[in-house]
Amino acid sequence: MTRRRQIYEGKAKILYEGPEPGTLIQYFKDDATAFNAQKKGTISGKGVLNNRISEHIFTMLGNIGVPTHFIRRLNMREQLIRQVEIIPIEVVVRNVAAGSIVKRLGIEEGLQLPRTIIEYYYKDDALGDPMIADEHIACFGWASQEEMHDIADMAIRVNDFLCGLFAGIGIRLVDFKLEFGRIWDNDFARVLLADEISPDGCRLWDIATGEKLDKDRFRQNLGGEVEAYQEIARRLGLLPEGADTTVLDMEQHRKKRDK
Amino acid sequence: MTRRRQIYEGKAKILYEGPEPGTLIQYFKDDATAFNAQKKGTISGKGVLNNRISEHIFTMLGNIGVPTHFIRRLNMREQLIRQVEIIPIEVVVRNVAAGSIVKRLGIEEGLQLPRTIIEYYYKDDALGDPMIADEHIACFGWASQEEMHDIADMAIRVNDFLCGLFAGIGIRLVDFKLEFGRIWDNDFARVLLADEISPDGCRLWDIATGEKLDKDRFRQNLGGEVEAYQEIARRLGLLPEGADTTVLDMEQHRKKRDK
Ligand SMILES: Nc1ncnc2c1ncn2[C@@H]1O[C@H](COP(=O)(O)OP(=O)(O)OP(=O)(O)O)[C@@H](O)[C@H]1O
Ligand SMILES: Nc1ncnc2c1ncn2[C@@H]1O[C@H](COP(=O)(O)OP(=O)(O)OP(=O)(O)O)[C@@H](O)[C@H]1O
Ligand SMILES: [Mg+2]
Ligand SMILES: [Mg+2]
Repeated sequence: MTRRRQIYEGKAKILYEGPEPGTLIQYFKDDATAFNAQKKGTISGKGVLNNRISEHIFTMLGNIGVPTHFIRRLNMREQLIRQVEIIPIEVVVRNVAAGSIVKRLGIEEGLQLPRTIIEYYYKDDALGDPMIADEHIACFGWASQEEMHDIADMAIRVNDFLCGLFAGIGIRLVDFKLEFGRIWDNDFARVLLADEISPDGCRLWDIATGEKLDKDRFRQNLGGEVEAYQEIARRLGLLPEGADTTVLDMEQHRKKRDK
Repeated sequence: MTRRRQIYEGKAKILYEGPEPGTLIQYFKDDATAFNAQKKGTISGKGVLNNRISEHIFTMLGNIGVPTHFIRRLNMREQLIRQVEIIPIEVVVRNVAAGSIVKRLGIEEGLQLPRTIIEYYYKDDALGDPMIADEHIACFGWASQEEMHDIADMAIRVNDFLCGLFAGIGIRLVDFKLEFGRIWDNDFARVLLADEISPDGCRLWDIATGEKLDKDRFRQNLGGEVEAYQEIARRLGLLPEGADTTVLDMEQHRKKRDK
């Protein structure tokens, strides 16, 4: 295989030039960061799990009519996606109070919010991703009013779908982060769901035990990170039932076989 | 005069029970605070000036049909107001970048914003008045959708009026803070503009020189605080032209006369 051109290396993923114009390859690393990259670490096997979980969720969202960047998974750590112009806004959907909102508004972690909240953050690591409102987005033209309308609509649909999906496997969807991008069809821009949906950007609590099965295990040094991600994949039916081999074993095995 | 019951002492004002049910007396102190009361000081004469400036502005806003809590000024430091149920939201209207938005969004002080921005902050000193969006307000029921609609409408009208008022006297209205409250008419709630509008809660820059004529002189240790407030009052036609007595002299004089 010829050396691919790397487009961008982020904290959790690498983007490579794709096989066709307008496509990219998204490679999932095991690197984990938290608190605006002040805390760094590795969760061995995370990339494999997130690639698989994100594939699964984006595929299902595509099936219910939410347009996404996902084309197909290529291998254990890579997926083919449509290249988009990322809209510089992180969209956070909250059903239950956890993370930054707890401190910011002085409410208790675990409080079921009276209504689902959509928050927007300006994607800028140097500024620490500050919270913004529609007003700032309109003022600086980060997205059009129409795009924001589509984004809010899609965020609500994704939330409804994921609440159901996770409720069905005994998991409470506390909150999650989405990114959107635009693609140009001549002069007409369309908004697609981009990036990934995985335990890296969701808070997922076991309904029965309250156990955290997401990146908070890493943020809060709870241990068992990869086991938590693996539990999510397992409940989603993405790991062979009863298999006690780890994702890393599987990856080693494939690598040997493919040599 | 009989001793009045004090209802509340804030950082800049004291509220006393008014002469009739549903009224309050708002007493303007000379105390100044900044950075969530981490910085404290006194600006001698400020209370007199703010009482007069706020009377003037609220009266004019009433005349253009913005409903306010203001009834009438009682003396140099006091005004009679309608008691309202304060809506726990500070409404900030920004025309030009200054203060917290400069750091938060990494833009330059003095940047003319492409569009006016309305921001909302949750009034809670212990939390440091965190920024919020419509979503949080709706979620926690701090104001109804209808009230928020009225508030945004009034904020825009106040901004238009004040931009004109200050432009006419060579001053650039950079930003300002408003508070609103509700009064009950049987089961029907109405929103009124409350609190004060003065150089304590506005950023006012001289158009010709760029000089700051507001509380930033105190925040940034620029000196000449009371002179700046007095200059605003003078340009608004609230001080006798050519008078070189200070507000404090006037207050002393009245006090002696009234003894
Ligand atoms: N379809 C796409 N087209 C172009 N860029 C994309 C697409 N999907 C996701 N991205 C971008 O690719 C990067 C993914 O890498 P990663 O998630 O590691 O970034 P990061 O370090 O988290 O930084 P960021 O704060 O930008 O997300 C992100 O910048 C994301 O916005
Ligand atoms: N018409 C009104 N009825 C009742 N309360 C009012 C009215 N107008 C203003 N207030 C409240 O009176 C107080 C004015 O005092 P001051 O401005 O000193 O308070 P503060 O220390 O700034 O505290 P805050 O952060 O609450 O404004 C504020 O709490 C304000 O919300
Ligand atoms: Mg990312
Ligand atoms: Mg106040």
